[in-house]
Amino acid sequence: MSGDLRERVLTRTKEATPEVIAIRRDLHAYPEVGFTELRTASKVARRLTDLGFQVRAGREVVKEEARLGVPTEAELAAHYDRARADGADPEFLELVRGGFTGVVGEITGARPGPTIAMRFDIDALPILEKASPDHVPVQEGFVSRYPGVMHSCGHDGHVAIGLGVAEVLAAMKDDLAGRIRLIFQPAEEGCRGAFAMMEAGVVEGVDYFFSIHLGLGAPSGSLYPVVDGYLASTKLDVTYGGQSAHAGVMPEAGRSALICAAQAALGLHAIPRHSAGPSRVNVGLLHAGSGRNIIADRAFMMVETRGSTADIDQFVLDRAMAILEGTALAHGCTVDIKVVGKTISGTSDPELADVLAQQAALVPGLNVSPTPMVTTGSEDATYFMRRVQEQGGMSVYMGLGSDLPSGHHTPAFDVQERDFADGIAAIVLTMLEVGNHPPKRSA
Amino acid sequence: MSGDLRERVLTRTKEATPEVIAIRRDLHAYPEVGFTELRTASKVARRLTDLGFQVRAGREVVKEEARLGVPTEAELAAHYDRARADGADPEFLELVRGGFTGVVGEITGARPGPTIAMRFDIDALPILEKASPDHVPVQEGFVSRYPGVMHSCGHDGHVAIGLGVAEVLAAMKDDLAGRIRLIFQPAEEGCRGAFAMMEAGVVEGVDYFFSIHLGLGAPSGSLYPVVDGYLASTKLDVTYGGQSAHAGVMPEAGRSALICAAQAALGLHAIPRHSAGPSRVNVGLLHAGSGRNIIADRAFMMVETRGSTADIDQFVLDRAMAILEGTALAHGCTVDIKVVGKTISGTSDPELADVLAQQAALVPGLNVSPTPMVTTGSEDATYFMRRVQEQGGMSVYMGLGSDLPSGHHTPAFDVQERDFADGIAAIVLTMLEVGNHPPKRSA
Amino acid sequence: MSGDLRERVLTRTKEATPEVIAIRRDLHAYPEVGFTELRTASKVARRLTDLGFQVRAGREVVKEEARLGVPTEAELAAHYDRARADGADPEFLELVRGGFTGVVGEITGARPGPTIAMRFDIDALPILEKASPDHVPVQEGFVSRYPGVMHSCGHDGHVAIGLGVAEVLAAMKDDLAGRIRLIFQPAEEGCRGAFAMMEAGVVEGVDYFFSIHLGLGAPSGSLYPVVDGYLASTKLDVTYGGQSAHAGVMPEAGRSALICAAQAALGLHAIPRHSAGPSRVNVGLLHAGSGRNIIADRAFMMVETRGSTADIDQFVLDRAMAILEGTALAHGCTVDIKVVGKTISGTSDPELADVLAQQAALVPGLNVSPTPMVTTGSEDATYFMRRVQEQGGMSVYMGLGSDLPSGHHTPAFDVQERDFADGIAAIVLTMLEVGNHPPKRSA
Amino acid sequence: MSGDLRERVLTRTKEATPEVIAIRRDLHAYPEVGFTELRTASKVARRLTDLGFQVRAGREVVKEEARLGVPTEAELAAHYDRARADGADPEFLELVRGGFTGVVGEITGARPGPTIAMRFDIDALPILEKASPDHVPVQEGFVSRYPGVMHSCGHDGHVAIGLGVAEVLAAMKDDLAGRIRLIFQPAEEGCRGAFAMMEAGVVEGVDYFFSIHLGLGAPSGSLYPVVDGYLASTKLDVTYGGQSAHAGVMPEAGRSALICAAQAALGLHAIPRHSAGPSRVNVGLLHAGSGRNIIADRAFMMVETRGSTADIDQFVLDRAMAILEGTALAHGCTVDIKVVGKTISGTSDPELADVLAQQAALVPGLNVSPTPMVTTGSEDATYFMRRVQEQGGMSVYMGLGSDLPSGHHTPAFDVQERDFADGIAAIVLTMLEVGNHPPKRSA
Repeated sequence: MSGDLRERVLTRTKEATPEVIAIRRDLHAYPEVGFTELRTASKVARRLTDLGFQVRAGREVVKEEARLGVPTEAELAAHYDRARADGADPEFLELVRGGFTGVVGEITGARPGPTIAMRFDIDALPILEKASPDHVPVQEGFVSRYPGVMHSCGHDGHVAIGLGVAEVLAAMKDDLAGRIRLIFQPAEEGCRGAFAMMEAGVVEGVDYFFSIHLGLGAPSGSLYPVVDGYLASTKLDVTYGGQSAHAGVMPEAGRSALICAAQAALGLHAIPRHSAGPSRVNVGLLHAGSGRNIIADRAFMMVETRGSTADIDQFVLDRAMAILEGTALAHGCTVDIKVVGKTISGTSDPELADVLAQQAALVPGLNVSPTPMVTTGSEDATYFMRRVQEQGGMSVYMGLGSDLPSGHHTPAFDVQERDFADGIAAIVLTMLEVGNHPPKRSA
Repeated sequence: MSGDLRERVLTRTKEATPEVIAIRRDLHAYPEVGFTELRTASKVARRLTDLGFQVRAGREVVKEEARLGVPTEAELAAHYDRARADGADPEFLELVRGGFTGVVGEITGARPGPTIAMRFDIDALPILEKASPDHVPVQEGFVSRYPGVMHSCGHDGHVAIGLGVAEVLAAMKDDLAGRIRLIFQPAEEGCRGAFAMMEAGVVEGVDYFFSIHLGLGAPSGSLYPVVDGYLASTKLDVTYGGQSAHAGVMPEAGRSALICAAQAALGLHAIPRHSAGPSRVNVGLLHAGSGRNIIADRAFMMVETRGSTADIDQFVLDRAMAILEGTALAHGCTVDIKVVGKTISGTSDPELADVLAQQAALVPGLNVSPTPMVTTGSEDATYFMRRVQEQGGMSVYMGLGSDLPSGHHTPAFDVQERDFADGIAAIVLTMLEVGNHPPKRSA
Repeated sequence: MSGDLRERVLTRTKEATPEVIAIRRDLHAYPEVGFTELRTASKVARRLTDLGFQVRAGREVVKEEARLGVPTEAELAAHYDRARADGADPEFLELVRGGFTGVVGEITGARPGPTIAMRFDIDALPILEKASPDHVPVQEGFVSRYPGVMHSCGHDGHVAIGLGVAEVLAAMKDDLAGRIRLIFQPAEEGCRGAFAMMEAGVVEGVDYFFSIHLGLGAPSGSLYPVVDGYLASTKLDVTYGGQSAHAGVMPEAGRSALICAAQAALGLHAIPRHSAGPSRVNVGLLHAGSGRNIIADRAFMMVETRGSTADIDQFVLDRAMAILEGTALAHGCTVDIKVVGKTISGTSDPELADVLAQQAALVPGLNVSPTPMVTTGSEDATYFMRRVQEQGGMSVYMGLGSDLPSGHHTPAFDVQERDFADGIAAIVLTMLEVGNHPPKRSA
Repeated sequence: MSGDLRERVLTRTKEATPEVIAIRRDLHAYPEVGFTELRTASKVARRLTDLGFQVRAGREVVKEEARLGVPTEAELAAHYDRARADGADPEFLELVRGGFTGVVGEITGARPGPTIAMRFDIDALPILEKASPDHVPVQEGFVSRYPGVMHSCGHDGHVAIGLGVAEVLAAMKDDLAGRIRLIFQPAEEGCRGAFAMMEAGVVEGVDYFFSIHLGLGAPSGSLYPVVDGYLASTKLDVTYGGQSAHAGVMPEAGRSALICAAQAALGLHAIPRHSAGPSRVNVGLLHAGSGRNIIADRAFMMVETRGSTADIDQFVLDRAMAILEGTALAHGCTVDIKVVGKTISGTSDPELADVLAQQAALVPGLNVSPTPMVTTGSEDATYFMRRVQEQGGMSVYMGLGSDLPSGHHTPAFDVQERDFADGIAAIVLTMLEVGNHPPKRSA
């Protein structure tokens, strides 16, 4: 890559940065949880359109029956009103309503070349943001306007970086070879959205695929070309139905769904380790019963299983299903088990990671790690990664460091906005470079 | 008792009945849970005053530090606004605000005689009332105006009967010997209110004490002079504090309050039976955790223990405390245990029950049961019963049958208003008769 | 009853006492657990025969397929050798071998009259007897010769009393009206033997039935004509089969029967109380696993349920079965559940108890309790009691007090031999008196 | 190494093989569990002495207070009688009695050189050997003579190989440089013996250390120069003391150690995974209670924790201790926790493994694996490995493949005797080669 091109990328990135930060702060103030990202998605679609991207949104890029863990109609409707009141783009709002909050923008370069795609996730979390004055979003006035909903995993930053990449690419279209497809995905939390976008075909024809995450424990000024170790995972919503009765007057008439769930929770956590690799199981939430002197007739649990491979996750899941069902029989309760999220593990291609590493090294002040970052979380971008690899393409999951005042999914989480520009520059440089590579698809 | 007196009681009762039913329906429409009965208590105090009773209300009859399970200041304040808007009596509203919703009215007869008291409980329950057209309160337009709060134990009927008794007594003051004290008690549900009124002295000097409950499985047209078997009980709110952590990324950093609570719940339910009499234990509610992939850092449980004697309840309670605390240590969690309700068992005096039986038999169409009704619920009127007996007096807990479409504490609960008059007449006749008995106090 | 007859009974009893005590000590030294009472039964049969009773033993009085919890063939065979070596009666030994250790002796009086039966249980317990010098059986040299087997419930005394009754009756045959049937029953512990003898017809045709127990917390010199409160009970042997695996190398290949049993034990103990009366559940023994680093592939539990009525016991049993089976499914284990014991509750007939009370009062120094003793144990003589009552007859379960140095089923248990004579006299007097009563059978 | 030397090693090994197999079969027929290997150790010491080794045995090589999980005095005494009757060497029997069954033999080469040591473990397991005719030890007449004790992990083969190595080395003393120390260690099962021999100083001064295991899933004819992944582990014996009571008559008087242990077992198995590496926890054995109708007053558990590092094992252990102790408090039980085994993880030195790989490749027909075998078991030879490395030396843990009809620690386990010669030859060749290497100790 010519030094000139590099300079122009850095300059364009610098120019784009104020808007990128403004976008991030706007999204941070108006967080939206999975499949309700109506305001977010509509604004992304509007911005991409304005930048000259060819935009698809809603049902065209999110396959209805492949979605997992979609909120109820009532919740979606209530959020629609909120989004409209909060200034969602009216045109795209209609397109993405009803739980179809995915957006795909594509731009075609001046020269032929491969198809390059990148995924940015857009959803927030049901967490109450820290309200004290030492929290930067409070100081700067962009703290969440919706108590109990918060961008505490940095996806606001992901969207901002994605739109920053779009802005720089749009300005450098003449330098571009091939096609760039930017995928803005709903409901990454709970691993619910990627599968439905993959099933809608959004990575069909992709030769090179990228995904990114901010933070992850790495410091500001660092980039990891590979994030490894994402666990395959399945998310379950479990409801036990028992029989209520007055606990003093006629305890024998009851069937305690609470006791049933307590036994199931212990059984789940006693699922054995697997010798072939890491596994996990967690009952993260349990709500049972309605009053002190009533035998609980309902219990609800949020459960997840994980494994370093899909097989190990399946092992834990199979054990979990038996425990959930057998325990229901043991306690005379009904059980309803819903798969509300699912993902697989993912592996980055070293060859593509090397390209990223070389280009990222061109960004002044950005330290490129020679070794992968190893996590044991889960991430549904792995569906895109594997699908592209199955087509003969290559995939990479990168990590962009950022000094965090508090860990992911905590009330005081925050990212350093100064890191966004480094990420944008590294991504654009890499995309320009990869544009010169041959298409990889087997077809 | 002369036949004439009986006829006058029956006539006065008949005259009072429309107002009694109107009161019941008004209370049913505006239900208020324990210690927030601001509208209810203020209206009771107003009515008693208007009928010529000497009325005490608020802090004078509810000892502050003896109350259990009082709602938070914020809840009390919010309810105050609601009560004022709903037409609470302004004068008494100020007296009973802040969780002091007890009222005592006293009337003095024309002749000297013993002091007779009766307890009526006034609180509603946090239950969502049935909304379908086959539910009488819906048909007749007095269904609860506050979804999620409901008179589903018949205390609205208790208050109406109590004010009906007051009205008839006021009209027959010249026939009355001794003094009659009517006690309107908050927060019977959860066994939280009687102790605080007893500690304020409301049954000091009482020779004969009565309490009543509607329904309890007995049919309309029946009266049980004795309800027996009320269990001593203790109510606990338990909070476990753990340590949250990402369940996939760093499970070892977490301390699951959910698993801790699940083990505690199983331990509590495994507390052994007691050979000396019935016992109970129930974890009625368990809320733990905040999200699927987070190790739960908090768990809240509502627990109750019971025993046919205070000793047996104490046995269960002692075991429960050890389990709750030991389990916290086992799982590295903190534990906070609050006693939010407590009551004892109670025994009716057969001699006084016989007087009631004889007088109730004078009410046309009312069948008087020769045997006690045996329940295994809990009831804090037992504190009044025992205190009066300790003073040398006698106590009775009676049951007034009523055909119920659905059991106590269920959404379709309702009582038959036609039964109120029978209860009022039986009570007034008994009070007039007991007025001729000598004072019983040892002093 | 004539004073002369009373004197003769007391005299005959006194004469019989040394032999009674010798028998008791011999049995105490050679204890035999349920269905292995080969030496005991053969000696009882020999003694009854020698006293002139018509004796039936073995398969004739123990219905094979109605037995519960019979030891294995190997255990029975091993015990046969032991019994033979220890001086069992060779003739009757052959009759009772193979788990048919019941004996029935009958004697016919000089005059016609009703059929009167009495049950004596004969089995010991798998308990290690106390070996210290302050234990009377040690001092007097009749401590158990078989470590780990012990008469720690007083059945040795029951047999001795039964044979004392036989001796006195045989000597007073001319005073006797009707027929007396003495039933010596195996395997009362675990409630395994009575049902099989009842099914073999041993109480058919009985008008008046008695049973007795020593001790039960009552002091020496007292007799309770009625022991009440025996709980219906079911005894279960439960075996879980899992899958073993090396716990370090391949934990995922295992199915822990130990964890399965732990969950089942907790589930069983969490079965709710019943409002209609006392209930019980106990997992008394749990043996699981074979080694520290092996996932346990087998777990064995000894379980019992109880209820104050057969319906309540059935309620607990139904819940227990669901828990045992559902938990197996939950953990991928097989489960085998065997009913190894079962009994019902029993009620004494007051009229017959009154006869006993009057006659017992004739024994000098014996205090007769005016009120029943209430226990909450279980006892399978209740099968005989109910069967006789169903036939139109009457039944009584009596308690003979004895100062115990230590409770039933403990290593230091012992009875006072001086109490035996009181019991023998009271029983013989009652049988002589009841002989004058009319037959009660409906037929 | 000269081809001639190699040929002589192979020839000597071939000559030694019949005796090696005879030794193995003799040991297999007389298996002895940890610290009772009296016959085994005495025969090993005798054989080494006869071969010209300088032998130390007993307290000199096993530090008394550093032993873990030593059988009781009674068990040791009983086994002494057995060993003597079975032909133990009388001289060495006295030396190793009382739980000091370690033996060390040393031979000095003709030339100076480093000190080379190798560990062979000698103990059997408490497993009932398969008795059917398709089991080779049955066919060939060397099945265990002690039902319930069995060499089902191949340590009989280890001893035989060790003595085969001794025989060949003794015959080739003139070719030898440096010193060879052969360590025969008791009680490897449960990780109880190595630490006590290390503490007695048996690897002091060692430059190069080897250990070996047969089988491990690798086929006959293969050798793995490195076995990796041994987990650090701690072994606990846990005893809960409760309070017995009759479960029907007075359940409230009991404190069930069985329920306590069931809760603890579930709590232990719910200890979370660790993100830094594999961990394990297992309750392998639980014995609780004495009878069906008695509240269990005692429960015994065999527990083990593991971790891929000592820190991770410590994490699991810390959690386990809290659970064990907190659960005791919760259920009013006493708890006694004994550490009866402990080991660490171990890492082979690649440089030394390369020497082994090269020499093993000289054995005809032996395939040398280029990659390590990864296990997740535990092994206390790791104490020797680490100690030697701390001194500046190098250590290797090798695996010798053998076709197994059934897995380790199962009743049908067996090894192929034809594999022994390959192992002996590879080891002797390696020792001769390493003799030419310089001493490694830092001192």
